[in-house]
Amino acid sequence: MKGTSLSGVERDALRGRSITIHSPATVANMVCGFDVLGFAVQEPYDIMRIGFSENKGVTIINEDEYDLPTKPEDNVAGAALLAMMEELEEGIGFELRINKQIKPGSGVGSSAASAAGAVVAANRLLGERFTKEDLVRFAMNGEKVASGVKHADNIAPCIYGGVTLIRSIFPLDIVPLHAPPLYVSIVHPQIEVRTSDARGILKQQVQLKDAIRQWGNIAGLVAGLLKNDYALIGRSLEDVLIEPVRSILIPDFEEIKKRSKDAGALGGGISGSGPSIFMLSKDEQTARLVEQEMKAVYARLLLDHHTYVTTINMEGVKFIG
Amino acid sequence: MKGTSLSGVERDALRGRSITIHSPATVANMVCGFDVLGFAVQEPYDIMRIGFSENKGVTIINEDEYDLPTKPEDNVAGAALLAMMEELEEGIGFELRINKQIKPGSGVGSSAASAAGAVVAANRLLGERFTKEDLVRFAMNGEKVASGVKHADNIAPCIYGGVTLIRSIFPLDIVPLHAPPLYVSIVHPQIEVRTSDARGILKQQVQLKDAIRQWGNIAGLVAGLLKNDYALIGRSLEDVLIEPVRSILIPDFEEIKKRSKDAGALGGGISGSGPSIFMLSKDEQTARLVEQEMKAVYARLLLDHHTYVTTINMEGVKFIG
Repeated sequence: MKGTSLSGVERDALRGRSITIHSPATVANMVCGFDVLGFAVQEPYDIMRIGFSENKGVTIINEDEYDLPTKPEDNVAGAALLAMMEELEEGIGFELRINKQIKPGSGVGSSAASAAGAVVAANRLLGERFTKEDLVRFAMNGEKVASGVKHADNIAPCIYGGVTLIRSIFPLDIVPLHAPPLYVSIVHPQIEVRTSDARGILKQQVQLKDAIRQWGNIAGLVAGLLKNDYALIGRSLEDVLIEPVRSILIPDFEEIKKRSKDAGALGGGISGSGPSIFMLSKDEQTARLVEQEMKAVYARLLLDHHTYVTTINMEGVKFIG
Repeated sequence: MKGTSLSGVERDALRGRSITIHSPATVANMVCGFDVLGFAVQEPYDIMRIGFSENKGVTIINEDEYDLPTKPEDNVAGAALLAMMEELEEGIGFELRINKQIKPGSGVGSSAASAAGAVVAANRLLGERFTKEDLVRFAMNGEKVASGVKHADNIAPCIYGGVTLIRSIFPLDIVPLHAPPLYVSIVHPQIEVRTSDARGILKQQVQLKDAIRQWGNIAGLVAGLLKNDYALIGRSLEDVLIEPVRSILIPDFEEIKKRSKDAGALGGGISGSGPSIFMLSKDEQTARLVEQEMKAVYARLLLDHHTYVTTINMEGVKFIG
């Protein structure tokens, strides 16, 4: 925590003021970086507005179609705010309006966008009292509501922007990583894969030789990002541990990957725990070709899907007004 | 392979010419990078001289005290040269003199220095016909003779210099990594730990959660090196998988690590498969203090030991004459 508390007078002065933000989708794992890497994208994003409220605690108003819980303890944004409020003086009340654009369960950090967006916006309202690391800590409580596990690989990039490494979660050690310009194609097949299910099917023991291959790849990916070496990034986007298990939950995963790479993508894989698939490309034209391939595969299966072509979002949550 | 073959005339012209090199010690694994990271040091190094010979094949002359095999197939340098010669025209002969300064079995890449030095020197004699990657490929045959396994985490830094990542061994993908200035303190307790034994005690299955912690650390270490972030390098020098098993073979390992860090070392651990221990420091003064702590621990145990204070060797094998 940094800075000082707001006096009652200051808070009174802020009543009625509200902060509007765009909280971006994020791609966790980044193929070989299970549980430790993630990046934010420009689109899609949730729209959220927060203000002080006369009512103590957290009041949540959903302005979207998803019928998410409004009881703060059961809402990911609410749980994140409640964690923050444990470190604030008593008697503060927040009113949070959420217009969710990132479909829950899509695998691009819908819950993280809510949790991170809420605490980033509240922190602005409070005069930037907390550090980014504090905000990650609070927002992870939202992830716990969503998936049962405190993880930060969506939260951290949502708050820091760009590509982030969570070197360690206990104690929290977040490392923002430089990245060269990258275009991102995402396809979200309209099937449900629950994060808890996607975690449940993973083996808790792995072969040492596979783990070695995996950490060779993550080391290569980090080096590729920091050295602007697109070819190395592409070669390192390989996952021998998680993808072979999880990809069975995603229709025609291998076909999409193969066709995307044939179209020029550097590589890619499952976004978070799926079902969305992301692919990275060096330029927009390639990313659009990849999008067409993704659409073609799911059109043939008569499977409803959404696609995005976007770039890495370097600033994370954006303040709109 | 690059370039063209030497003609008989050219080879005749080179007869009598010889190349002398210093082939450096290397530290493999670098704590969290088991089997994929390594770096070369300025000291110690082997001295080797190679020339063409009238006798076909490889003739090995040992000029040191270690009584290593002279039959090429059984000698790590010989095996590396034989692998190279499979890609040369018939009828070439090399005479190789080895003055080994890096004690075999010390854990600082003694076998790699021989294997890598031999092929780097022979390649110079041949007019740089092979790429560095070719040379790594040949030299790995020496490692197979020494430990039964083709590994490149000593070979690659010995040939490339600096810190190297072996992202993948099949296919071979070597990534040289920038590193900030680092001082290295090494202690070699005079006990024998065979590489094959040190490999044998490792569990072939590991917990996924431990593997995740390990790849968080290797990603942090690579980022720390490339960003010149000494604190991040220090935090990332943590090994939750291999060190807890292997360190039991090394007397007072934990004591040395603790005292080294208390003296200001960034961190460190087992060099290769041991028994040598290395520690990294930001400046020479700290590295010398660390050396004193290492000496004090083994003096108390009445255990013979050698120490070195050196820096990272950025060029690898050096041509002397």
